[in-house]
Amino acid sequence: MTATVHMDRLSWIEYERRVAEGAVVFLPCGATEQHGPHLPLGTDHLLASAISADVAARIGGLVAPALAYGYKSQPKCGGGQHFCGTTSVDGATLSAMVRDAVREFHRHGVKRLVLVVGHYENQWFVTEGIELAMRELGGAKSGLEVMRLEHWDFCREETLADVFPGGFPGFALEHAAVIETSLMLHYLPELVSLDKIPDDGPADFPPYDMYPPRTEWVPPSGVLSSARGSSAEKGARLAEDIAGGIARAVRAEFAMEHRA
Amino acid sequence: MTATVHMDRLSWIEYERRVAEGAVVFLPCGATEQHGPHLPLGTDHLLASAISADVAARIGGLVAPALAYGYKSQPKCGGGQHFCGTTSVDGATLSAMVRDAVREFHRHGVKRLVLVVGHYENQWFVTEGIELAMRELGGAKSGLEVMRLEHWDFCREETLADVFPGGFPGFALEHAAVIETSLMLHYLPELVSLDKIPDDGPADFPPYDMYPPRTEWVPPSGVLSSARGSSAEKGARLAEDIAGGIARAVRAEFAMEHRA
Amino acid sequence: MTATVHMDRLSWIEYERRVAEGAVVFLPCGATEQHGPHLPLGTDHLLASAISADVAARIGGLVAPALAYGYKSQPKCGGGQHFCGTTSVDGATLSAMVRDAVREFHRHGVKRLVLVVGHYENQWFVTEGIELAMRELGGAKSGLEVMRLEHWDFCREETLADVFPGGFPGFALEHAAVIETSLMLHYLPELVSLDKIPDDGPADFPPYDMYPPRTEWVPPSGVLSSARGSSAEKGARLAEDIAGGIARAVRAEFAMEHRA
Amino acid sequence: MTATVHMDRLSWIEYERRVAEGAVVFLPCGATEQHGPHLPLGTDHLLASAISADVAARIGGLVAPALAYGYKSQPKCGGGQHFCGTTSVDGATLSAMVRDAVREFHRHGVKRLVLVVGHYENQWFVTEGIELAMRELGGAKSGLEVMRLEHWDFCREETLADVFPGGFPGFALEHAAVIETSLMLHYLPELVSLDKIPDDGPADFPPYDMYPPRTEWVPPSGVLSSARGSSAEKGARLAEDIAGGIARAVRAEFAMEHRA
Amino acid sequence: MTATVHMDRLSWIEYERRVAEGAVVFLPCGATEQHGPHLPLGTDHLLASAISADVAARIGGLVAPALAYGYKSQPKCGGGQHFCGTTSVDGATLSAMVRDAVREFHRHGVKRLVLVVGHYENQWFVTEGIELAMRELGGAKSGLEVMRLEHWDFCREETLADVFPGGFPGFALEHAAVIETSLMLHYLPELVSLDKIPDDGPADFPPYDMYPPRTEWVPPSGVLSSARGSSAEKGARLAEDIAGGIARAVRAEFAMEHRA
Amino acid sequence: MTATVHMDRLSWIEYERRVAEGAVVFLPCGATEQHGPHLPLGTDHLLASAISADVAARIGGLVAPALAYGYKSQPKCGGGQHFCGTTSVDGATLSAMVRDAVREFHRHGVKRLVLVVGHYENQWFVTEGIELAMRELGGAKSGLEVMRLEHWDFCREETLADVFPGGFPGFALEHAAVIETSLMLHYLPELVSLDKIPDDGPADFPPYDMYPPRTEWVPPSGVLSSARGSSAEKGARLAEDIAGGIARAVRAEFAMEHRA
Repeated sequence: MTATVHMDRLSWIEYERRVAEGAVVFLPCGATEQHGPHLPLGTDHLLASAISADVAARIGGLVAPALAYGYKSQPKCGGGQHFCGTTSVDGATLSAMVRDAVREFHRHGVKRLVLVVGHYENQWFVTEGIELAMRELGGAKSGLEVMRLEHWDFCREETLADVFPGGFPGFALEHAAVIETSLMLHYLPELVSLDKIPDDGPADFPPYDMYPPRTEWVPPSGVLSSARGSSAEKGARLAEDIAGGIARAVRAEFAMEHRA
Repeated sequence: MTATVHMDRLSWIEYERRVAEGAVVFLPCGATEQHGPHLPLGTDHLLASAISADVAARIGGLVAPALAYGYKSQPKCGGGQHFCGTTSVDGATLSAMVRDAVREFHRHGVKRLVLVVGHYENQWFVTEGIELAMRELGGAKSGLEVMRLEHWDFCREETLADVFPGGFPGFALEHAAVIETSLMLHYLPELVSLDKIPDDGPADFPPYDMYPPRTEWVPPSGVLSSARGSSAEKGARLAEDIAGGIARAVRAEFAMEHRA
Repeated sequence: MTATVHMDRLSWIEYERRVAEGAVVFLPCGATEQHGPHLPLGTDHLLASAISADVAARIGGLVAPALAYGYKSQPKCGGGQHFCGTTSVDGATLSAMVRDAVREFHRHGVKRLVLVVGHYENQWFVTEGIELAMRELGGAKSGLEVMRLEHWDFCREETLADVFPGGFPGFALEHAAVIETSLMLHYLPELVSLDKIPDDGPADFPPYDMYPPRTEWVPPSGVLSSARGSSAEKGARLAEDIAGGIARAVRAEFAMEHRA
Repeated sequence: MTATVHMDRLSWIEYERRVAEGAVVFLPCGATEQHGPHLPLGTDHLLASAISADVAARIGGLVAPALAYGYKSQPKCGGGQHFCGTTSVDGATLSAMVRDAVREFHRHGVKRLVLVVGHYENQWFVTEGIELAMRELGGAKSGLEVMRLEHWDFCREETLADVFPGGFPGFALEHAAVIETSLMLHYLPELVSLDKIPDDGPADFPPYDMYPPRTEWVPPSGVLSSARGSSAEKGARLAEDIAGGIARAVRAEFAMEHRA
Repeated sequence: MTATVHMDRLSWIEYERRVAEGAVVFLPCGATEQHGPHLPLGTDHLLASAISADVAARIGGLVAPALAYGYKSQPKCGGGQHFCGTTSVDGATLSAMVRDAVREFHRHGVKRLVLVVGHYENQWFVTEGIELAMRELGGAKSGLEVMRLEHWDFCREETLADVFPGGFPGFALEHAAVIETSLMLHYLPELVSLDKIPDDGPADFPPYDMYPPRTEWVPPSGVLSSARGSSAEKGARLAEDIAGGIARAVRAEFAMEHRA
Repeated sequence: MTATVHMDRLSWIEYERRVAEGAVVFLPCGATEQHGPHLPLGTDHLLASAISADVAARIGGLVAPALAYGYKSQPKCGGGQHFCGTTSVDGATLSAMVRDAVREFHRHGVKRLVLVVGHYENQWFVTEGIELAMRELGGAKSGLEVMRLEHWDFCREETLADVFPGGFPGFALEHAAVIETSLMLHYLPELVSLDKIPDDGPADFPPYDMYPPRTEWVPPSGVLSSARGSSAEKGARLAEDIAGGIARAVRAEFAMEHRA
């Protein structure tokens, strides 16, 4: 029953018991960002939450409410801030949100916390939030251990080779493309409009960024490489790589017993 | 079909069209906070989102992803920060989140934005976030109008008189009590454990606050006045007051035509 | 001799002795804000200081210099930021001022500190300032106890019933109205221009706020309900409620002996 | 009648009229800081306010409520932060206070603002506050002109030669010494305890500072050079230099007509 | 004569002339960070400056003083914060430095600014600094165009194939390894101790990070993959890729004439 | 061999050894600021670094990379922000840089740190950076001792009498004048253009500052008093005063043995 993994659907008394039993807490760090005409604006936080719930269900963990607004979209990995609907926060805002959340989970008695980043641009501001919290909490003395991960990094090479028979274009271009679309078809198929996948070929970016952004670098659809070829089956394989891989990483790093 | 009111379930292209058509955007400002043994930790953001969706459905609006972490819980209105599960942010973090979100909705072309506060302690930091954004955007020159409300303020006196035949204890004590429980029974009954409602009588607070908090002032359950007598029927009446009232306020202030 | 309660009129050596003897320190948190044509711009900090001095004289406490600039005036409780003379600070500024002051009183060896809020809009940013300081100082380990209060909350129901024979309009509307005017007539009558009291009836606000503010909601005088009927006698009764009530609260919470 | 120069004793309507007539506004930037056994903790803000009122009376200006808390006391100019009673704020707090105040006076329509610094350590954080405000307000386009001064810099050499027949030790050492004591004897004699002036000779500081501070560098009384020889007469002469000099500077810079 | 490219070696009058002539300004964004036993702590800012000077010499640009302190070193790309000598700043500090610098170059009349990132961990905080400045300056209206680049991204695939006959381990592991060592041998050979290159094989990191860091993941030398095989010749080829590539990018994006 | 004093030219292993042996670390805090037509924009950080290196060579210390961007130039001591080339940061940025650097040197095990201020406007923001770091590190418990100095304060009166036979104009006016020019002729003569020294006589400033600045107060060259009469010989004498004086101060305060 997946409801039980969602912290915000539990009473504080149930949550307290779960934390006392050592539950790992997952904090999805997503975004509200254009994902082409075929995926919803919430893709990044919805996927980060779905993956967190998948892992939590495997290991008896809990999922905190997602951070639904992420760092500013950049043209080369998310299309950029000129798209309508992309709703981003300043770096300091995101770092403060993460710092405050980590501080609170520590107060709850959480010993093992996993920040699941689902938006490429978030990584470093989430990192800084963790660093600020750990400094404030006294580092290793706090008894808190935090894992931070970008979920796509758990895709295995074999899987990528199969998913991209024509060669993997790299994660940065995988915005609203095959991986995200397939994962959405696996986890939240009702939010995917396969018929609206645009034909935009892979964007070709130079090895630098410009400010103000060169919006002409980005396909008008916001898709950085084609989502054609996405399928729920591919999504299931990728999800297994990711959720299974995170579950193994969590068990290994946090020295947990395998949960029956 | 309620799905269509949720911004994060729309593609950016659909969202852009809706914004261009003048859709009012609602931003629920909730919290993750203990709500006694019978209500979930997410009550404040879940209710703020449900009410926002209810209003949005009535007037053709859109609901942005909720801010799920609110300002620090205070003993006299939310039980306080000593409860496990309550997960709060600093005032500056919340104000920055709101400021950044308002700035982005303005960039999208949103002209009419409603911040629906669902957590008593949020009000002033949400206010400051709006004030900071409006100053940056140039005030009235921005063309953006923002409404901020605490949803319970739309309960009508007649309704309160009926819901509380023994007298209304006031909104501050209404934490995890009859109003919130009844609204949850109306909107999200699967998350209410009626059998776990504690008998805690109304808390009796002095006219001041102490830091560090006097935790003994607060019932150990976290419920500030009894939720006994809550019902889905009362919830429906309160929801009608609130959602209907907000819809009327939005139409009146934003000079909208009545939507068929 | 009231001079002796004012910290800034004592030498550091006298102050140090008083603190070593356990003096309670009061920090008035006021504002510079329009208060109609009949009350001065300094009403909020002048009253907070006068009340603090009244209490300090009763219990042997000390009054620190007032914070004379408060959080931004809101239409529904202070008239709003469109009035000339209202001089407000950002929320983060006020919280930082309070945090820094609390940190310093702690360094002095003060164990019992009372923040007397005299401006409705200040409450939450003063709260955050205290919270930030207490976190930095280590909470209960600091040995410092802080009380925060809004002085009007000590008005007794009986008194309000007498002062408002036609019914009490509520504290939010009591801006530049009977309570503040009467208190000023009691404490600082030379600053009241009774002949300039406007006839503005009670403002009637909807249950939400708008940004930019709807200035037409606010009487042009800045008075939210009429100050007619104010008197020094009422002020004396209210002052006795407030100063006496605070003195009792301080003695009760801080386990002080009654001072002869 | 000096009351009329104090902004916080005027109604907003009177203030608005005065501002519309072009009144120069003075903002005293003081501190709460030890000033030896013979001067009160409030010396810096009390003197800055008194001098501001003196100038304002000469030129028809207005005095805003003083900033009563200043930047951290340094051993070589104020004795240091190890003294009880010294109550200081972080640099960013002071700069934010000043920035916010300048922004508000600009909103009021004030065109000519004078920040009267009465605490040596304040100068640069007050400067930064002004710089931040002017940048935000658009610099010269704002129509606002701000003067910042440290009041002691208006003491004339001839006067210093007379006041210090044995040679002027310099302003940094003039903490709680002859200039401040004489000015207090002129403006606020009831707050000076001449019988408590200590015999501490001039402190002798090296050309550097140490952190943590070398508290042994500072006389235990907190007086950096002797206040012996202070007199109300000297105070009157210094006050004439200062208040007269500021008045002349204000008239010259702001191209005011001489006020009858 | 390379001296002339260094802004801080020119008088303001010469600089003003060069800016008026349209000179591109380069701001190296480096770090002070361990780079193994064979490279100096300043490698990142020294290389970013050397490359900037190389490019500036080719196109008639100017090099501003380097930011010599970068964002916190992470185990998987820089070894981590547990190394002595690594001297890092908070993310907000770095972003503020960059924002302030960009604002100032804009004030100077610089139209074309290039931020040359020489420290992997800097990228996103430098990005945020640019974003904050561009928002403040009004975006495209400012007339300022900024390029941000990580210099290693200009290494061509053919070169990498030659430099790493056994396969390129990726840029993240290229900390204190063949690319940096070869570039240092090209630009600053006197600072390289070839005899101290350790034998540490490539570090093998999992697809996540832990806080507090797992310091055992990182070779004690701080070198993430071996620098064996580094040579000045390779450095020259890499430098030509990088400096030549940046020069071409600058000319292309900024529509400059080729400089004779 | 001076190279060995520069931290950024050492490997982390050499640096760690030097720190373990008790090396004093010097952090030059300079600026990029106009210094007339005859001195380079980098004068303040170049001189602060050269002096730091000179002292470090005398006592076996180490010099960290300079902070090359300082607080905003003020007309009366640096010419002001209206000059092209002057590149300044906000006060909070500089304080944060210093705070972060002090925190890191403490982590390295540095016990004795000297901040060498080479830009008049930096003093108070550097002070605040140190204060913020020391508070965070626990003050005296940290085991860290920090000295902060403005290098010109070590010029001896006898030397100034000789260098300025016509009378010393004071350090504030000594911007780009005889002291700085002579020190540059001593340390970095290749960067001085003696033939471009302007004839600008000493600027004559009133005892207050104006915002926006009165740029007409400042000679168009940016030189506040004439650099005529500067010489390498004078520079050598001043350098001996300064470097020798700092070396003595460091030995005295840090109880070091005289280094052979």
